[in-house]
Amino acid sequence: MSTSPSVISASRQSVLQRTLGVLGGGQLGRMMADAAHRLGVRIVVLDPTPNSPAGQAADKQIVGDFKNAECIAELAAECDVLTVEIEHVNVDALEASAAKCSIQPSPATIRIIQNKFVQKQHLHARGIALGEFAEVVAGGRQGVMDAAARFGYPLMLKAKCLAYDGRGNAVVKSEQDIDAAIASLSGAAAGGLYAEKWVPFTRELAVMVARGLDGKVVSYPAVETFQRNSICHTVVAPAQISGEILARAAAVAEAAIATFDGAGIFGVELFLLADGTVLLNEIAPRPHNSGHYTIEACHTSQFEQHIRAVMGLPLGSPAMRVGASVMVNVLGSGSSDQDFDNTWALCSSSLSLPSSTSIHWYGKEGVRNGRKVGHVTITGPFMPDVQAALRALGPSFADSPVLESTFKLAPVVSVIMGSDSDLKTMTAAAQILTQFGVPFELTIVSAHRTPQRMMDFAKTAHTRGIKVIIAAAGGAAHLPGMVAAITPLPVIGVPVPLSYLDGQDSLYSIVQMPRGVPVATVAIGNSTNAALLAVRILSVQAPSLLEKMIQYQESMEREVLGKVDKLEQVGWSSYTAAGH
Amino acid sequence: MSTSPSVISASRQSVLQRTLGVLGGGQLGRMMADAAHRLGVRIVVLDPTPNSPAGQAADKQIVGDFKNAECIAELAAECDVLTVEIEHVNVDALEASAAKCSIQPSPATIRIIQNKFVQKQHLHARGIALGEFAEVVAGGRQGVMDAAARFGYPLMLKAKCLAYDGRGNAVVKSEQDIDAAIASLSGAAAGGLYAEKWVPFTRELAVMVARGLDGKVVSYPAVETFQRNSICHTVVAPAQISGEILARAAAVAEAAIATFDGAGIFGVELFLLADGTVLLNEIAPRPHNSGHYTIEACHTSQFEQHIRAVMGLPLGSPAMRVGASVMVNVLGSGSSDQDFDNTWALCSSSLSLPSSTSIHWYGKEGVRNGRKVGHVTITGPFMPDVQAALRALGPSFADSPVLESTFKLAPVVSVIMGSDSDLKTMTAAAQILTQFGVPFELTIVSAHRTPQRMMDFAKTAHTRGIKVIIAAAGGAAHLPGMVAAITPLPVIGVPVPLSYLDGQDSLYSIVQMPRGVPVATVAIGNSTNAALLAVRILSVQAPSLLEKMIQYQESMEREVLGKVDKLEQVGWSSYTAAGH
Repeated sequence: MSTSPSVISASRQSVLQRTLGVLGGGQLGRMMADAAHRLGVRIVVLDPTPNSPAGQAADKQIVGDFKNAECIAELAAECDVLTVEIEHVNVDALEASAAKCSIQPSPATIRIIQNKFVQKQHLHARGIALGEFAEVVAGGRQGVMDAAARFGYPLMLKAKCLAYDGRGNAVVKSEQDIDAAIASLSGAAAGGLYAEKWVPFTRELAVMVARGLDGKVVSYPAVETFQRNSICHTVVAPAQISGEILARAAAVAEAAIATFDGAGIFGVELFLLADGTVLLNEIAPRPHNSGHYTIEACHTSQFEQHIRAVMGLPLGSPAMRVGASVMVNVLGSGSSDQDFDNTWALCSSSLSLPSSTSIHWYGKEGVRNGRKVGHVTITGPFMPDVQAALRALGPSFADSPVLESTFKLAPVVSVIMGSDSDLKTMTAAAQILTQFGVPFELTIVSAHRTPQRMMDFAKTAHTRGIKVIIAAAGGAAHLPGMVAAITPLPVIGVPVPLSYLDGQDSLYSIVQMPRGVPVATVAIGNSTNAALLAVRILSVQAPSLLEKMIQYQESMEREVLGKVDKLEQVGWSSYTAAGH
Repeated sequence: MSTSPSVISASRQSVLQRTLGVLGGGQLGRMMADAAHRLGVRIVVLDPTPNSPAGQAADKQIVGDFKNAECIAELAAECDVLTVEIEHVNVDALEASAAKCSIQPSPATIRIIQNKFVQKQHLHARGIALGEFAEVVAGGRQGVMDAAARFGYPLMLKAKCLAYDGRGNAVVKSEQDIDAAIASLSGAAAGGLYAEKWVPFTRELAVMVARGLDGKVVSYPAVETFQRNSICHTVVAPAQISGEILARAAAVAEAAIATFDGAGIFGVELFLLADGTVLLNEIAPRPHNSGHYTIEACHTSQFEQHIRAVMGLPLGSPAMRVGASVMVNVLGSGSSDQDFDNTWALCSSSLSLPSSTSIHWYGKEGVRNGRKVGHVTITGPFMPDVQAALRALGPSFADSPVLESTFKLAPVVSVIMGSDSDLKTMTAAAQILTQFGVPFELTIVSAHRTPQRMMDFAKTAHTRGIKVIIAAAGGAAHLPGMVAAITPLPVIGVPVPLSYLDGQDSLYSIVQMPRGVPVATVAIGNSTNAALLAVRILSVQAPSLLEKMIQYQESMEREVLGKVDKLEQVGWSSYTAAGH
């Protein structure tokens, strides 16, 4: 809370105690302040609200409007670098300070992005995949009807400027909705309106991308976001989609951010279509709600990454340091003290159990209905562990989309067969994996009939997030061995008993693999043990599975001891007679 | 940086924006401030140095002496709870504020702990295992000679009060050292001296223990600490010792902290002796250098845990969210600007590579020689990954004890044999595990000759940190199956070829295990594949092993393609003649 500028001599080349100025004093600035302190960067925020969320944690707050040129000049006067935690700033005033200090990202970039129509023109002109959009030129009703003639209904009517958390957007389902939609946007309409063709997306994804002063771009894993009332509600990291689509999302996001000047972190919202197409929705030139999970879940948080980028430090690793994470926003429920306590109770419910949940409370003075006042992040080695922790948080979180039966996890085990005739043998494996709550896929990969598919499967399984492969050795007795020769993953082979040779041929062909190509072989026809082995293998990463395995072993022991008692009670002869 | 007290109505039951006062404004208070903000707790620090490390990050700093009664009263006046980040405070003045606000941990506890002799008397009287110690009653030379008569040389001569980072301690190797030792302690000698019998420890361990207002105690994993010039240099988490000793260390530490009043986090320093005995060395009633790793590596950092404890919130999970972590302190190299830049360069070297390293710079204005000015923490799924990242940080960290060949990692794979006659078969497994840098143990566990040892081994392997078991099936063909029936871990069985039956009996006995007891069986005599399978299994947790496996597979492919070329060049007949 020092009010004196840095005492470190300016001659020093390091970033130490150089000062970063932030336009905006909300939760994003608050979390930036923590990151800045860790890196030894002094941080001053400009916000009209005294004791703002960021001001509480920063070295200093200047109380003033971040749209006011004089206030921005006052901030710039004591800073080495200026950045923003909200894009709706006065860019002209910001540019006026460019002579005094470095401004990141560049005012030109903020100017483009803060106008969503200009943003889309910029991206479209540079070949970034977007949904169709058009300016509502004629203004008012006729302009929307022109757009509808081109895009059909429903369409999205959006304000070009000052839009966030769904504000400034309106859905137009038919001609009858037009007037109401325009009226609902009147607040932001001064900046003009534009229309977007409805995008039939199956998921909403987001990718945080950091751009260094040197133009280098790195991206975080794509996450899936769920909105409620157009406000971000839940973020799942990584998104439970295939590695191929994760890579496609990263490519679109990185390409988009590479088109902008200046350094910093950017939030890129994306649509995933049913056919796997990824379209860019919109960009925020700052830390983003979909990146809050990075504080606990990644080696470098989005906030530290932003500080590194704007201060000209090398970018850090965006890789996750945990296997899975879910972030849930906490929104105000009303303005009374009781509402305040209720909201905190929701947030603090995560405190009252030894959980893997972290709380972030933003220190806002009011918690009016729908306002973001905090968030909780859950981390774990394995997404089912994170779901269990979320469930344990109680009713407040029970309605999370992540706990709905329709929410499918990406498979970590792949069960493959040479033909569907192996299915009767492999069903037991599917039952065990289901019993232990292990997400898996079951498919046919024939080394004989589809050799290329087999090669592709084995080459890419580990890039798709698969951790263990269970392969049937039936008619294609060498399937497990072939796959094990290509994939670096552990492969479990199940000899399938055929009409002849009782599966001994399969057993020998799997177990007697040459040095260098290991296949974990189990008993002929015993896919139960293959699945139990897969669970034990996954428990190396997920201790919760080790616990479940111990319980499973104890239940087997109880079962046998029960038979001992039974035999004792009824005697061997009645026991046999009873057909045990 | 608000200077106004909380604006939240006091009627509210939540901890929100209640104010925590901290005596001391160093790096511990600085890291407390970050944790307090996340929990919505307002934090004010008392420190004589303006713009102190903690003051920069706190809501407010009162510039004043934390030993001065009036300053403490001024702090107490605006706080709901008072705590300390250094134990050398004025306890009388602190107690004087007890009427105004809650003080955690209790002044009585701080009073006991700040006098190391009284601390040891307190713990000894309550049955906590300590080295022998005695007050230097006669004072001066004679008192030390009396202690030497009892303990022998060498002995430790210590000041009772105001000792930290080795200050206040002197080694007395012989009678000739006595006068110099006393002289060296003269600064702190006012509080009196005491002697400790030399403890022949093999490792120094530390355990962070949190005590809630309700008296509930939880502990973090035991870590190993390495000192340089009596100052903490490196911390390894978890300590690379057996689960049994980890548990013993936790038990001693928890028992010690349970004897004190009040809430908060405590750093407990321990000695491990060659026979596995754990003795308590000393306690700090506050966050501790050995717990800094918890910020990145554990679900709840020691600083958040301290805030939770003193504010009366439930304690969080102390479990690690990563597999391994190492923390290294960054000490000042001198007082000049050049020294300052050199010190920062050492710290920031971790920024310039995409690493799993986090920097914490304390924002101290001077970096005089030997002063703690920051630390770096490295996390990873697997200790060898953490060592690799540390090595990559460059020469500044190359001398870390964690990188010395004498530093042994706890085994994650256990290779067991029924008798040493299996060793010639299992040697290849040991070679592969060594090649892949996987820490392993190799031992004899005979189901025939030592059935109880076999039972104990299988029951406890997973609690000792073992992740995979490779078992030879030789004379004791059923060893892998017996072990797999007891342990929840993945078990790989290697059939050993015997004089008769060529190992087929072993193969059948392992592979044909009943449903419920899986053994991953490999080819007869092929322990190479067993080890490669173990590496693939471990790669589920450690992606670096997946990369190494891919390289291994590529090298095998190159080898075979080389033979193809050779055969092409020389023709089949010369190829055969050449004895290929």
